[in-house]
Amino acid sequence: MIKASEFLLSQNQALLANFSELRADPNHAKPMIQFMKGDPTEFGHEHCKMSQIGYDIVKSEIPKSQNHSYCHSTGTQPAKQAVAKHFGHGKNITENEVIITQGVNQGLFYCLLGICDPGQNILVPEIGFPFFDGIAQAYQVEVRKYKLQSDNNWQIDFEDLNSKLDVNTKFLYVINPSNPCGSVFSKEHVQEIINWANQNHVLIVADEIYYGMSFGDFVSFGELADEGPIICLGGMDKLFFTPGWQVSWMIFYDKNNHADAIKQAMFNLCQLLLHANVFVMNSLPQILDQLTIFYARDKMIHFKENHDFLIQELNQIRGFKCIPAQGTIYLAVLIDLEVLKVKNDTEFAKKLLLDQNLMLLPLSWNGTDKYQGVRMLTIATKDVYIEMIARLKEFVSRL
Amino acid sequence: MIKASEFLLSQNQALLANFSELRADPNHAKPMIQFMKGDPTEFGHEHCKMSQIGYDIVKSEIPKSQNHSYCHSTGTQPAKQAVAKHFGHGKNITENEVIITQGVNQGLFYCLLGICDPGQNILVPEIGFPFFDGIAQAYQVEVRKYKLQSDNNWQIDFEDLNSKLDVNTKFLYVINPSNPCGSVFSKEHVQEIINWANQNHVLIVADEIYYGMSFGDFVSFGELADEGPIICLGGMDKLFFTPGWQVSWMIFYDKNNHADAIKQAMFNLCQLLLHANVFVMNSLPQILDQLTIFYARDKMIHFKENHDFLIQELNQIRGFKCIPAQGTIYLAVLIDLEVLKVKNDTEFAKKLLLDQNLMLLPLSWNGTDKYQGVRMLTIATKDVYIEMIARLKEFVSRL
Repeated sequence: MIKASEFLLSQNQALLANFSELRADPNHAKPMIQFMKGDPTEFGHEHCKMSQIGYDIVKSEIPKSQNHSYCHSTGTQPAKQAVAKHFGHGKNITENEVIITQGVNQGLFYCLLGICDPGQNILVPEIGFPFFDGIAQAYQVEVRKYKLQSDNNWQIDFEDLNSKLDVNTKFLYVINPSNPCGSVFSKEHVQEIINWANQNHVLIVADEIYYGMSFGDFVSFGELADEGPIICLGGMDKLFFTPGWQVSWMIFYDKNNHADAIKQAMFNLCQLLLHANVFVMNSLPQILDQLTIFYARDKMIHFKENHDFLIQELNQIRGFKCIPAQGTIYLAVLIDLEVLKVKNDTEFAKKLLLDQNLMLLPLSWNGTDKYQGVRMLTIATKDVYIEMIARLKEFVSRL
Repeated sequence: MIKASEFLLSQNQALLANFSELRADPNHAKPMIQFMKGDPTEFGHEHCKMSQIGYDIVKSEIPKSQNHSYCHSTGTQPAKQAVAKHFGHGKNITENEVIITQGVNQGLFYCLLGICDPGQNILVPEIGFPFFDGIAQAYQVEVRKYKLQSDNNWQIDFEDLNSKLDVNTKFLYVINPSNPCGSVFSKEHVQEIINWANQNHVLIVADEIYYGMSFGDFVSFGELADEGPIICLGGMDKLFFTPGWQVSWMIFYDKNNHADAIKQAMFNLCQLLLHANVFVMNSLPQILDQLTIFYARDKMIHFKENHDFLIQELNQIRGFKCIPAQGTIYLAVLIDLEVLKVKNDTEFAKKLLLDQNLMLLPLSWNGTDKYQGVRMLTIATKDVYIEMIARLKEFVSRL
């Protein structure tokens, strides 16, 4: 028997263990309803898909001979130029400030590898997409959770943030719009965060994979970038409802070149894992030009409808309390453990699955033990929600 | 100024430094001829491309709603089943023994991360694709080079291999067919290697990205796998001349389940960087069925023609000596440093570039200082070779 590496085993395996424990009954009388993946296309919602225009652009790129080949490990020039053009925000961003990645996870991984060393720390939102929770400790990089205020649109609690900062802090990780909260920072709050980072000389890594997915305004960290360096991560994943296409990017807003060494480090890391699919990359210029960066934003009205419907319905169920979102495809729903007679949200999810064949993502799986609840998706269709709510009500009524 | 991680800087940067030093003169009178990338599509050779059938299959997958979504992090079920079907070699391989990766580099990286810990070592061919040379030392994993016999079809020197093995050896890395030598192991030699691994209880990681690209026979390590575990890496990259599509795979041949912990480790690692492009993955079943795993092999006659022509011509140039290949798109050409009046092949490549605007890859960049020469590509067209040879002759005549 050959052993796996200690390195790998030193990863936080809690999340993986959770997923493997959440097993459905294959013989359940009711068909499965699954609300686990943050994938806007999951339910085939007519408004959650790429348009024919996008398909045709990609199809036209497939046979081109230059699109068979390897490209520069940081991505093709047309793709990088297109990202620079559409997300430059007048900040003098060129292709040299852009890397195309194979998914945003790759960008996050590069941030960990290229910026952090053992004994250093990063500031990560509690609650948020738990990418670093699993892997950072394998690299002996400490993940320090800073508080978001659930009663204040999940804005950052700066007093708490200050208490987590020290000389070994390498970057502040923000997720905006937020997975799993669905919150969207106001322009003022984005400015406050940037001011804080400038004052404290902290690099910002802004995960903007839900770029523009706001019910109201949305301001990118890139738009307000000024003195200090900001790395923004984005992608086609949600912008064009094509997470399976795996074309994402990172953009360096850094007018004073403070993060040049980091940028060079990222470029070098790209040689390790190389680039995304070339013909999809080379579809980006036309897709961005024709469908615009507002493609997802312009569909938000449909998710808002679901969001409002869900709040209205779920808040009527005993033990459930929705925290209204300002965008994305998520809605955080807190649960009352006493009322629902469970010790935590994981137990709730397991019981619900066995009883109703309804699979919901526990909030605590998003790198927190402070919030107990579920992450609701606003991307399904009305019939799915009506069935889901009926099942939730039945489940609760039997407790 | 924010520093990059020591981790990153501890990578072997020699290769990167080499590439950055090899700068062409943008005002050179002659057009650039570039023979650097191991990319069969580079020269638009009519025989080095995916067929219309393949394009049409991919196009038909694009609009399917399931192909917009994220899939399982180890790849889609149809893609894994297709790889199992076509590369199973009667070894009872199912989708559970397959991971689809975003390029073979990702598979190699997972082998490093999932199998090796600081202080351990891996056995790597001298000479060969230098993936581990750069990154292993950052993980404090020792890369031990074992000898290939240049006068014996680049077969492994087992006496030397034995001397490199110890209790901390985690795997034997073989590249067959070989980049950059173009050698293809005979069935007997593959069997010898497997016997050696079985006797010494060493896991084999077989990089078969040039699967089937032989002028004669080709035997996969998977075909002869028996008692001990073998991980085979392959991909669409060269098999279908689509390196830019970035769909590759790893297959676990392990009838005794000795490497189950490793396999599980790899599955977990997949959650870190997720999967390749979904609609290309889901094109794989039809592409493999219709174009077969012999798609590249059936084109080898064209590369053999170039190979023979190059040997005939290059061996006539003072200071050049070709070592015949048995397949791939490569030909190793040794150079005589005294005759060519350079201290090493890197200097040769630099001088040649400045003088003739001809860019060749030094052999020593493939993880060796034992072999001085260049890696020739056999994928170009006759007119390119005639021009290249004229330039080489001119360069040598002036020395």
